[in-house]
Amino acid sequence: MTKMELAKSGKTSEEMIGVAQEESVDPEFIRQGVAEGVIVVVRNNRHGYIRPLGIGKGLRTKINANIGTSKDHCSIEEEIEKLGVSISAGTDSVMDLSTGGPVREIRRKILSRSPVIIGTVPIYQAAVTAAEHKGHIDRMSADEIFRTIEEHGEEGVDFVTVHCGVTLQGIEILREHERLLDVVSRGGVFLIEWMIYNEKENPLYQDFDRLLDIARRYDLTLSLGDGLRPGCLADATDRAQIHELKTLGELTERAWDAGVQVIIEGPGHVPINQIEKNVKLEKEICKGAPFYVLGPLVTDIAPGYDHITGAIGGAIAATAGADFLCYVTPSEHLRLPTIEDVREGVLASKIAAHAADIAKGVKGAIERDNEFSKMRKNLDWEGQISNSLDPEKAKRMRTESVPVGSDVCTMCGEFCSIRSVREYLKKS
Amino acid sequence: MTKMELAKSGKTSEEMIGVAQEESVDPEFIRQGVAEGVIVVVRNNRHGYIRPLGIGKGLRTKINANIGTSKDHCSIEEEIEKLGVSISAGTDSVMDLSTGGPVREIRRKILSRSPVIIGTVPIYQAAVTAAEHKGHIDRMSADEIFRTIEEHGEEGVDFVTVHCGVTLQGIEILREHERLLDVVSRGGVFLIEWMIYNEKENPLYQDFDRLLDIARRYDLTLSLGDGLRPGCLADATDRAQIHELKTLGELTERAWDAGVQVIIEGPGHVPINQIEKNVKLEKEICKGAPFYVLGPLVTDIAPGYDHITGAIGGAIAATAGADFLCYVTPSEHLRLPTIEDVREGVLASKIAAHAADIAKGVKGAIERDNEFSKMRKNLDWEGQISNSLDPEKAKRMRTESVPVGSDVCTMCGEFCSIRSVREYLKKS
Repeated sequence: MTKMELAKSGKTSEEMIGVAQEESVDPEFIRQGVAEGVIVVVRNNRHGYIRPLGIGKGLRTKINANIGTSKDHCSIEEEIEKLGVSISAGTDSVMDLSTGGPVREIRRKILSRSPVIIGTVPIYQAAVTAAEHKGHIDRMSADEIFRTIEEHGEEGVDFVTVHCGVTLQGIEILREHERLLDVVSRGGVFLIEWMIYNEKENPLYQDFDRLLDIARRYDLTLSLGDGLRPGCLADATDRAQIHELKTLGELTERAWDAGVQVIIEGPGHVPINQIEKNVKLEKEICKGAPFYVLGPLVTDIAPGYDHITGAIGGAIAATAGADFLCYVTPSEHLRLPTIEDVREGVLASKIAAHAADIAKGVKGAIERDNEFSKMRKNLDWEGQISNSLDPEKAKRMRTESVPVGSDVCTMCGEFCSIRSVREYLKKS
Repeated sequence: MTKMELAKSGKTSEEMIGVAQEESVDPEFIRQGVAEGVIVVVRNNRHGYIRPLGIGKGLRTKINANIGTSKDHCSIEEEIEKLGVSISAGTDSVMDLSTGGPVREIRRKILSRSPVIIGTVPIYQAAVTAAEHKGHIDRMSADEIFRTIEEHGEEGVDFVTVHCGVTLQGIEILREHERLLDVVSRGGVFLIEWMIYNEKENPLYQDFDRLLDIARRYDLTLSLGDGLRPGCLADATDRAQIHELKTLGELTERAWDAGVQVIIEGPGHVPINQIEKNVKLEKEICKGAPFYVLGPLVTDIAPGYDHITGAIGGAIAATAGADFLCYVTPSEHLRLPTIEDVREGVLASKIAAHAADIAKGVKGAIERDNEFSKMRKNLDWEGQISNSLDPEKAKRMRTESVPVGSDVCTMCGEFCSIRSVREYLKKS
């Protein structure tokens, strides 16, 4: 039985109990959420000792870091280092998006070394393999797509992005209602190319039941991808995007009926004033399934700083109800991220998630800030540094600029407000 | 006549026309806004060739960069370099907050070299001078405070922060309703110390008319400081903060009656779910006077990343109606910012302001993103780099990671979605 089937039958699995403990909620709250589909507890049943991750309604907002090679930049050692950095920076999950070099070997290494759940986009491997062996991705067969997903399931991958909502009708909509930036999802484009070349419907949509069979076998969580997400502000919340979302809403119910857990992927590039609407639409159309957003980026013009444009959008989205934030690194739109980019991306995303959790009233969120601010009041620098989101950076910045007094910093020096006012307010 | 007096009498000054041109609005729109107090056109009438800055209702969101020495870290050359970096990064104004070294000389240098308006906090100089010459800031006289403000006006400073809302009653409220982090505003604390030691009311409140006389003489814009702003999330929107805001609301009307332009300073540390409320309260209590927020920071626990916590808060505040964002640098709470911190701070704040302008529908904002996204679609890398918010960083990041194909990047390489889909969507 899958976790969702268990939950529906009133049973609480070990994983649900573990997630409940981590979130300081009742196991029954998790079971009910999983049964209804508004919470997912992600863990492949073949994945050995791995901490299952709870994502969804009432839980702490989670973040994901994308790593992986490309054909233009491929080093296994670097990716393993990115895995380590993203975990020590505090990511809740990692997706391996490798498209260059020995992608199987890379994935297996990542799977064997990661303490957090792992996600993948199997269509990348299927497409890259077809390009290598058959000359072009158009020649991959539907069977190869499903076999690749099965392979990922067998190996223990916990969740997979599957762009099931990219349909022939969606392509028609794209043609009728021209976009400024067409399609920017790699998986989406692989499928669109394949569909146009082969004049066939998307196998992941057409044979969705076959996908559900695979998912059920490994208790694989399906992350229904947004192949038609907007790639710029001008395309946000347009017909193609909403059409795809409606398709995902239908597939969500079919997945739930089959006992398969689902999360819904969302945009992308969205102006601030449309973010809440996007979250509400997803919750309505997909019946409360957890929402996994990429950013969203609130402006198109800041390459080099898209971890910040994404943190702004992510904080607003999570406050409005998004459950899972995919990080964006400073290198987005420019290059494959470096190790340092990965660290910056995770931190920015973590800030967004935590700030939203405070706004949403998630248990333990504001309490952490209050404890921290007491240390600030007490000029407890060691406490501040070790309890900050990135102790290493905080320590480096402070020690690079040495204050004359040990209990202050070089911003105010002897005129430290916190130190002065404490004394004065005590006087009558 | 001051600009506000001119505007009230139906006249449009050169400065108003200049601001109207920059904002692509009618000069009459600016005149009316200045007459009502909902727009300020900031420029000291003694300040020579300086671009006046319009801030307020219907205009582009502006940003400010704080620079200046401290006693623990003082280098004039470094501050001049920070001035240059903050301007090339796109700040709209600069505040010199120097408290260390020859503060007069530093201010004069900054005034003579800046192409943008300059703000100061005269109480810093008054307090530091009293500490140096009289042994303690408590011994400064009310007269010295006003004379320092006059000196800044004479020299051409365009706007000054004056913490007029810190009152004896405010101190009582602080004592009765204990805060987690007391008072974090340096100017606020100088005045509180002075008031408690001398057992006297705040001269800037008590003799507000004297301040208005000085402001009128130089057409100095008063930035009514928030000495009691919350220094941590737990203290946000509390009694002390709101009491001060109400005092500022009363003073705003007195300033307007005297023909003096006013902006209102706001917090600080504020949870996301309280930001909009804070903006609405300011607009209501201060009758639509432009709102100048510091951040706000949406979590307390991210020293090293407060440019990001501030960009999240700033974007939300500006979307809700804040007009002017004071940047926060990565070094906030840790040290005096370095030159690189200043650059990062300005960029983060600029992203927040621009994203909010898109959401608010400010003229020209989304248009810039759309032009940019067309370049992205056309794989026009030179265009993207030179039109991005930080061309230097975008170029460096791209050139550090060389793609095999000249028209793609190392993220996707030959599998570039944008390039592929363009071709396919044309096929029938």
